[in-house]
Amino acid sequence: MKVAFIGLGVMGYPMAGHLQKAGYDVCVYNRTTEKAKKWQAEFSGAFAQTPAEAANDCDIVFCCVGNDDDLKQVVLGEQGILAGMPSGSILVDHTTASAEIAVELAAIAEKNGQYFLDAPVSGGQAGAENGILTVMVGGDEAVFAKVEPVMATFARFSQLMGPVGSGQLAKMVNQICFVNTVQGLAEGLNFAKKAGLDTDKLLDTIGKGAAGSWQMDNRGKTMCANEFDFGFAVDWVRKDLAIAFNEAEKLGADLTATKQIDGYYQEIQEAGGNRWDTSSLISRFKK
Amino acid sequence: MKVAFIGLGVMGYPMAGHLQKAGYDVCVYNRTTEKAKKWQAEFSGAFAQTPAEAANDCDIVFCCVGNDDDLKQVVLGEQGILAGMPSGSILVDHTTASAEIAVELAAIAEKNGQYFLDAPVSGGQAGAENGILTVMVGGDEAVFAKVEPVMATFARFSQLMGPVGSGQLAKMVNQICFVNTVQGLAEGLNFAKKAGLDTDKLLDTIGKGAAGSWQMDNRGKTMCANEFDFGFAVDWVRKDLAIAFNEAEKLGADLTATKQIDGYYQEIQEAGGNRWDTSSLISRFKK
Repeated sequence: MKVAFIGLGVMGYPMAGHLQKAGYDVCVYNRTTEKAKKWQAEFSGAFAQTPAEAANDCDIVFCCVGNDDDLKQVVLGEQGILAGMPSGSILVDHTTASAEIAVELAAIAEKNGQYFLDAPVSGGQAGAENGILTVMVGGDEAVFAKVEPVMATFARFSQLMGPVGSGQLAKMVNQICFVNTVQGLAEGLNFAKKAGLDTDKLLDTIGKGAAGSWQMDNRGKTMCANEFDFGFAVDWVRKDLAIAFNEAEKLGADLTATKQIDGYYQEIQEAGGNRWDTSSLISRFKK
Repeated sequence: MKVAFIGLGVMGYPMAGHLQKAGYDVCVYNRTTEKAKKWQAEFSGAFAQTPAEAANDCDIVFCCVGNDDDLKQVVLGEQGILAGMPSGSILVDHTTASAEIAVELAAIAEKNGQYFLDAPVSGGQAGAENGILTVMVGGDEAVFAKVEPVMATFARFSQLMGPVGSGQLAKMVNQICFVNTVQGLAEGLNFAKKAGLDTDKLLDTIGKGAAGSWQMDNRGKTMCANEFDFGFAVDWVRKDLAIAFNEAEKLGADLTATKQIDGYYQEIQEAGGNRWDTSSLISRFKK
């Protein structure tokens, strides 16, 4: 099966690699051609000079770029993905973007006789590299059924959440939930350090109970050690939260605590921590 | 081995039962004698009319009451636990109380040639009933070593956190962490419901990733169904948080987000939800 992958960022690069290693005939496109060449050298796939060229003759085109604007740029226009994709083929968008643009792009694809799924992922760079992402999908069930086994090359679990846009809505809930958990850890572990507790013992103990979380298991010890130079960047979570706040306004959903935390992330950006992991919330506190 | 259990609340009642069933010779005391009689009928142990009488001749006395004041009342004075406990015996306090009172009671016990461990638990009523609590212990290592196998009758895991008071400090961190996770779930699931997402599918999906938590696994579905008539009550968490805020002031630890959530719990109390589970944070939002 011929597939394309558009966008070789920290997520897309290894995801496209998993597809090629699994035996799919992958053609990649990246804004900076240098990275596409590097990918080709590593995985022996093909690369194209435009999204349309990469998408040409493909059954499925995967895409993972930065935001709504980047997405429009690679999907629409004469050189865009939809211009190259054959009728009957499927565009799977792994970008974390708005539900609105998912609906918009799906409508355009439909007019061309093409299909669209919004399919944001969770699991971060490590999840992409290890091929164990979770994918939240919005779109048609029959289309999802065709794509699911292909996504399985880089995903441990994919779930069809509902119609187009539902994948993005689910991802928003994911981001709302996790940042609050991180804020609790930040306040709790800062308290623990000031109280002189052995934080290794503490995390091993409370991690087994009602305070336990993925964030506690995977970020607790690095937070206590003030290590933030890895993981999911503050810049990225703020982009994602902005999308959620915009959607929440339309829905009339209260996100007071989450907005407060977004303000804390802004403080971290202003202190130069743009690329720090989201667990850097603990860095705001004076030692 | 002869042991006593003082305080037969929702936690103490089953904990004392596990001790008796495991073959320890248990004498209980409860402020309301009616409940002690009920316990005796169910488990065939003994009951006493005062804490001192229950503690008489015991190797270990367990205690689990409401708060610092209740604790002083059962531990000190002529009818109190320490008055009845033999020299060389150990008082294990499972109450969630301040670190300060733990230090205070340990000092008094020491003067009598007795030992004291602060040992607050997590796992809630279900954890107590199923004998799978987690115990956070403060005190002396040799004393802990004597008590640990006995606590194993109602605990899955016990950890010595450090000197007296450390158990209480660890419990405070536990409460700080978990209420923030619940607030994230409240905002996230309220958003999800308003967005029309299938919340069962959503929880099954995002629960596997970076937003996953004990609270999501064990409270997500009941929150979506507005079921709060069980679990860990709002009144209890506010008592625990008050202890943490008092300690945080001494430590100079910022608990801004946690204080905001405590304010939300106050709103729930004012709306009559004193006995609702802490997951009732979602009830504050308009449908």
